[in-house]
Amino acid sequence: MTKLRTAVIGATGYSGGELVALLSRHPEVELVALQGSAGRKEAVAFSSLHPSLRGKDGPACEALSLPTLAAHQPDFVFLATPNESSAELAPALVALGTRVIDLSGAFRLSGAQYAIPELLDDGEQAQLRSAKLIANPGCYATSVILALKPIAHRLHPTEAVVADCKSGASGAGKRSELGYSFTELANNFKAYATTGHRHEPEIRKAIGLAEERPFVFVPHLLPIPRGILSTLHVPLAIRCEVATLIDAYAEAYRGQPLVGVRSHGSLPELVDVVGTPRCEIGLQLMKGERRVLIVSVLDNLLKGAASQAVQNFNLACGLPMTVGLV
Amino acid sequence: MTKLRTAVIGATGYSGGELVALLSRHPEVELVALQGSAGRKEAVAFSSLHPSLRGKDGPACEALSLPTLAAHQPDFVFLATPNESSAELAPALVALGTRVIDLSGAFRLSGAQYAIPELLDDGEQAQLRSAKLIANPGCYATSVILALKPIAHRLHPTEAVVADCKSGASGAGKRSELGYSFTELANNFKAYATTGHRHEPEIRKAIGLAEERPFVFVPHLLPIPRGILSTLHVPLAIRCEVATLIDAYAEAYRGQPLVGVRSHGSLPELVDVVGTPRCEIGLQLMKGERRVLIVSVLDNLLKGAASQAVQNFNLACGLPMTVGLV
Amino acid sequence: MTKLRTAVIGATGYSGGELVALLSRHPEVELVALQGSAGRKEAVAFSSLHPSLRGKDGPACEALSLPTLAAHQPDFVFLATPNESSAELAPALVALGTRVIDLSGAFRLSGAQYAIPELLDDGEQAQLRSAKLIANPGCYATSVILALKPIAHRLHPTEAVVADCKSGASGAGKRSELGYSFTELANNFKAYATTGHRHEPEIRKAIGLAEERPFVFVPHLLPIPRGILSTLHVPLAIRCEVATLIDAYAEAYRGQPLVGVRSHGSLPELVDVVGTPRCEIGLQLMKGERRVLIVSVLDNLLKGAASQAVQNFNLACGLPMTVGLV
Amino acid sequence: MTKLRTAVIGATGYSGGELVALLSRHPEVELVALQGSAGRKEAVAFSSLHPSLRGKDGPACEALSLPTLAAHQPDFVFLATPNESSAELAPALVALGTRVIDLSGAFRLSGAQYAIPELLDDGEQAQLRSAKLIANPGCYATSVILALKPIAHRLHPTEAVVADCKSGASGAGKRSELGYSFTELANNFKAYATTGHRHEPEIRKAIGLAEERPFVFVPHLLPIPRGILSTLHVPLAIRCEVATLIDAYAEAYRGQPLVGVRSHGSLPELVDVVGTPRCEIGLQLMKGERRVLIVSVLDNLLKGAASQAVQNFNLACGLPMTVGLV
Repeated sequence: MTKLRTAVIGATGYSGGELVALLSRHPEVELVALQGSAGRKEAVAFSSLHPSLRGKDGPACEALSLPTLAAHQPDFVFLATPNESSAELAPALVALGTRVIDLSGAFRLSGAQYAIPELLDDGEQAQLRSAKLIANPGCYATSVILALKPIAHRLHPTEAVVADCKSGASGAGKRSELGYSFTELANNFKAYATTGHRHEPEIRKAIGLAEERPFVFVPHLLPIPRGILSTLHVPLAIRCEVATLIDAYAEAYRGQPLVGVRSHGSLPELVDVVGTPRCEIGLQLMKGERRVLIVSVLDNLLKGAASQAVQNFNLACGLPMTVGLV
Repeated sequence: MTKLRTAVIGATGYSGGELVALLSRHPEVELVALQGSAGRKEAVAFSSLHPSLRGKDGPACEALSLPTLAAHQPDFVFLATPNESSAELAPALVALGTRVIDLSGAFRLSGAQYAIPELLDDGEQAQLRSAKLIANPGCYATSVILALKPIAHRLHPTEAVVADCKSGASGAGKRSELGYSFTELANNFKAYATTGHRHEPEIRKAIGLAEERPFVFVPHLLPIPRGILSTLHVPLAIRCEVATLIDAYAEAYRGQPLVGVRSHGSLPELVDVVGTPRCEIGLQLMKGERRVLIVSVLDNLLKGAASQAVQNFNLACGLPMTVGLV
Repeated sequence: MTKLRTAVIGATGYSGGELVALLSRHPEVELVALQGSAGRKEAVAFSSLHPSLRGKDGPACEALSLPTLAAHQPDFVFLATPNESSAELAPALVALGTRVIDLSGAFRLSGAQYAIPELLDDGEQAQLRSAKLIANPGCYATSVILALKPIAHRLHPTEAVVADCKSGASGAGKRSELGYSFTELANNFKAYATTGHRHEPEIRKAIGLAEERPFVFVPHLLPIPRGILSTLHVPLAIRCEVATLIDAYAEAYRGQPLVGVRSHGSLPELVDVVGTPRCEIGLQLMKGERRVLIVSVLDNLLKGAASQAVQNFNLACGLPMTVGLV
Repeated sequence: MTKLRTAVIGATGYSGGELVALLSRHPEVELVALQGSAGRKEAVAFSSLHPSLRGKDGPACEALSLPTLAAHQPDFVFLATPNESSAELAPALVALGTRVIDLSGAFRLSGAQYAIPELLDDGEQAQLRSAKLIANPGCYATSVILALKPIAHRLHPTEAVVADCKSGASGAGKRSELGYSFTELANNFKAYATTGHRHEPEIRKAIGLAEERPFVFVPHLLPIPRGILSTLHVPLAIRCEVATLIDAYAEAYRGQPLVGVRSHGSLPELVDVVGTPRCEIGLQLMKGERRVLIVSVLDNLLKGAASQAVQNFNLACGLPMTVGLV
């Protein structure tokens, strides 16, 4: 098989950097171009942008330019760009005949094939193999959806599922703002975006939760650079036994090497997955068997962004899902 | 007024250290003795135990010994000791004729007067003035109870209140365990004690929540030294307007300088209170007006332990609650 | 004594905030005005700028305006402003008849009375009592100068003193730059400004080290919010005994409550002083008795800025140096 | 080529865990056994010891037992054990006919072939190919030796080289001590072992610095989990030009992919190398051209331990130095 010519726009960012590091070691990929997401004028060595990824780099990172990009004749372009940039770039790239995987939120609710690789059925996988524009899921959304999907049909009809989520600071991207400065965040912790985070409709759609169904999503900012831990407080429609619960998850993720389900009562912690492409899920049936506590952890820059994009790329090319990741 | 002769047992620990620092500047207190909580043999200068509290210290810290303590003729003894030690020491001290404020969990559910200073009615305040043994509330419990008490009578009868709480590492006390080592906790985050934390019955009792009423309490360990942030997801029995909600809290904490209630939708963050004797509470009525999001923050070593003990001491002596604290 | 009318410009910053907190509890001070250092238009409650300092605040913080300030008729104005602002504001304020204490670097080398309170002789103290413009020392400079001054006359004439200094991130002030963002600094450590930091001439001048004498000053950025630890590697002109060395420091700082000298071989650590107005110094004579290792620690926002400014203010007013600080 | 049968003793520790992760992906290695370093009785899945290394693991980790180990017929055994254990185990293993790479300090000064891979000449490389016992360098020592070796012959004969070194907490290994607890180390920084660290003689020997030559080595403890940054203050015997200096380093490390030398004046920071097998070195000639500032960074668990052991293993087997590392 000839290697697939791929390019990354937004290679200057945290997710973009991780994506380049993964693609640079992917056996079926030739990295033909890296571009920034904005005004930078001159080409810069990738390793000077991300020194710790030295040796996992590609070509120099150029200024953003679709004509330049087109000249590289990429088969696939990954967009690790802000929503607004992706909204402009993706259709233009598709019009040029390139397939696009967008890591932003621009097309998650419509206009693209939304794909959490472990949750695709056969028909969706077939569809992905010819999709022109693929929307990669959000980081919080991935952690919540993977945790809830196996019991989505068991949720209580009127009591709220509570998703109390905590993310490291890199989830906000590279930020030149006082509110994201070291001195402001160190030793701190806070809730934010409590009146509506853009991942909420994504979660509702993916698990089939209509808008009138109560669902509480409260993100918090952890004083660490990487990782998301979601604590899910889930009321069930009817009592459920431990074995039934565990079976539902085992069944849902059987044969999925990048989603791990713990034994009952064993809850994962953040460092178990930081730096890995995995999501780990732990479950605990609460006294009374009418409520479940679920803890889900992942690395926001990998399973929440870059490595999940590689999973989707693999499926889109008809490759096994984990090529280049394990 | 003659100064009150006070002693602290457990002055070697984090809460004990903070307590000594507060008492050393209290205008009505003479610190007559400090003791450790265990085997240490020789007296040690307090400032060598807690170098950052130099200048806020008392007498040298002696080995634990009730006869030695009795010789100092203390009016009040504070116990900043583990549950088991307090369970032994408190009755012995009371038998010696000393009044005791216990910061441990030994007597919170029975055997002492449990006191959250801001929530005492006139009768309870009067009772406190002659109480022999006072149980100081737990750190998580304080943050949750202060946040819930004003709407305790409005809680939904069958849907669960969820208390998703996060604490810094000093909440576990001085620990010589691998699980509390810097390398294990840095960059990490996890839930723990999910099958039952000893603060849960304390919370239920204080807000009058019978055991059959659903209440979920999940503590987590933050990679910071100090502070508790509790996120409360609260279903209401009936719809409630913003003004009603805010009024309930304003009413409950009117004239209370150490409990702050924010304007609607303004949620406090941890650094707002670390190093202070305050608890700050923020509220947000969720869409539909049937659920409230409450965020409550405090310093686990101060309002969650030492400064609250000083509030209780003040009330027990007939002093204004904030003497020595503001 | 009537209270002294004081104002703070730059009350929005980290040092300015700490300064207001100290002055608000100073028994001889009336805080008559707080102003920001730049464009902010409306007055803002101090406690909304620095929530953790609630209860230690003054009047609302106004926009920067000398006419407004003059209307408050301050006796003293503290400038916690950038060099450029101080360079403009200080002479204007002095012209208005106000005494000024400038925390910036604008006048440390000339144009003001430079004062490290513990190092002033009687003449300099007298001079300070009538000084119009007082330059408060730099944070790194304070830690190095206090550590070196007692042996300044013993330094080797041709071998270099090495000052390997490490500071927390608040030393850079409030920064809206990617390089100071949490994600960039967490888990990181680096040297910076190695070709010349503005504190170097200040140090040379204060300890009387001519420019041709070798002196190496290398600052580093620690991934913590507060504190400076300076490690000084000091070659001596001739051998020196431990007792002589310790005596020199004991002599230099006898009766100085805010500078602590440890016993030989006991080196202070950063948490010993963070949150305090103290500088702690530890010494160790190296094998051969021709070199000394000195470790000096202080809180860059307090002894390195705000509390040292209060010491200077006290001396300038003829008050004991530690009023309002211990 | 048949794969080499290798075993790791001390697979439970931080360095041991990283070593297993590297060896598990090494193309010429078959991991035949993992053992703990002490009392643990039952075999434990490696991924339960090091959850974040899941997917990079080997066989289950057994209790320490040489007979059990011998039954696995390993060609090579890596010892990631404390000095005392290595001192016992290494000779016993060699007697069994197994080649040994010891990561501890037990044999660095005598009794083994000490090897920093980039500094071996042809003869030493030949010797390594038949060495029975190889001593892997210390973490601080590696960072200092690599930084100094190219100018070891240019050092001033009587003025001291100062190595002011800073390490993350994992350098101390897994510690169940209060002094290494999160609450004690967070926000802290301190010097330690200032009267003599065991790496000092190792450094002196490797760069040929006799005991009477002055050399100052002061380690410090950084509040981060991983990484060493060494700041070297180096007086030269005679003036040196920038080009000469840079050439010396370029020459010394030409063709060495795991040691990077920056352009003059560009100093590396810690995050550039954490998680990588690289050492990065930056140089700056000071004013006067008689002194050099050198900053050297590496990951203490990789280039300071596990990945350097793999380099030595590769050379010992006649493989290219970087197999399994890039």
